[in-house]
Amino acid sequence: MGKTVGVMLSGCGVFDGSEIQEAVFTLLFLDRAGAKALCAAPDAAQMHVFNHLKGEVSPGETRNVLAESARICRSGIRSAKTVKAAELDALVFPGGYGAAKNLSDFAVKGADCTVHPEVARLVGEMLAAGKPVGFVCISPVIAAKVVGDGVELTVGCDADVAGAIAAMGAKHVECSVDRVAIDEKRKIVSVPAYMYDDASPASVAAGIEKLVETVLGLA
Amino acid sequence: MGKTVGVMLSGCGVFDGSEIQEAVFTLLFLDRAGAKALCAAPDAAQMHVFNHLKGEVSPGETRNVLAESARICRSGIRSAKTVKAAELDALVFPGGYGAAKNLSDFAVKGADCTVHPEVARLVGEMLAAGKPVGFVCISPVIAAKVVGDGVELTVGCDADVAGAIAAMGAKHVECSVDRVAIDEKRKIVSVPAYMYDDASPASVAAGIEKLVETVLGLA
Repeated sequence: MGKTVGVMLSGCGVFDGSEIQEAVFTLLFLDRAGAKALCAAPDAAQMHVFNHLKGEVSPGETRNVLAESARICRSGIRSAKTVKAAELDALVFPGGYGAAKNLSDFAVKGADCTVHPEVARLVGEMLAAGKPVGFVCISPVIAAKVVGDGVELTVGCDADVAGAIAAMGAKHVECSVDRVAIDEKRKIVSVPAYMYDDASPASVAAGIEKLVETVLGLA
Repeated sequence: MGKTVGVMLSGCGVFDGSEIQEAVFTLLFLDRAGAKALCAAPDAAQMHVFNHLKGEVSPGETRNVLAESARICRSGIRSAKTVKAAELDALVFPGGYGAAKNLSDFAVKGADCTVHPEVARLVGEMLAAGKPVGFVCISPVIAAKVVGDGVELTVGCDADVAGAIAAMGAKHVECSVDRVAIDEKRKIVSVPAYMYDDASPASVAAGIEKLVETVLGLA
């Protein structure tokens, strides 16, 4: 029987939600590997709405993280609150600023951030059950905050975010776009993806394919 | 030198814009083939905003097709009005209801639809220049309307849409999700993708990979 893998979305669009390409590549490689994706997101308002054409916040506009995330996966998405580690073999976080604005407040508070309680609860359950969790792009900041304790993570070679990860008690390791960092002890896998701003879809896909393979191999 | 391929987006989300997975797979396979994607969309209001979680229209909400499309491609998108066939080697339309609600009004008027003038103009220019155009999912209705004249197209095995395509003067051919229809004379290629509602990301990706290969081969 195929494995069931949670995919934690954070909206729909790199600057205020999930990085769309990273999320879709995650779904593609899970499907190719015969795993079933269970998409989830917090049922909560986004930190803000960002106009991706103008490159600025849209004042006064509000969107819901769960409803926007539903655009990516077409159907079957669930509120993060309802998802338990017991029904998952693994969990993956695509990136995008949504991980730092909606799943946590890292974008505002850096190393002093807090993680959305439903997200922190699910990550904690997965770790306690010895089940692997994958983090793409900026989302390793969530692992740094929830796990700390020297957990090995990568966000590519971004010195500021790497510094914040260290300040939260985790250990940053540099990786190129197509390489994953693996903390074998805790079964935590991470990949830089569009932390390299000028990366191409094909190179980001190659890294996410490796992350999905590694996560499924640990499950 | 790599080819430049226009990708005409229609918003961001299957029910009121571009089918996100189809759009991302198009970008992935173009990049893997060494082609440069030039994303474009009309700078116009969407027909409506659809709540993808609740499965219903969001009354009173408005979004701009170009600004929402920009979420998918991260940067570099242009208003369709500014894009000329002279700068493209080929053009691809991902699917999603946006093709039938924003790039045309097929969703409302069926075979009596009209196509957005900037879109019809660009498709006409491509055909006149002998440059290939690819249509994914529901978007072949645009080719049926603009070209007519017995052009061979597929929307899978949807009898209603196939009937409308015939009523517009085109010829519908059935295809499975991983097969493309090719009108060699006009260099028009189409693939059903999520016209098969229960298709998986991997099977849709396989079909779009074939469409991209075929379109680039004709360019």
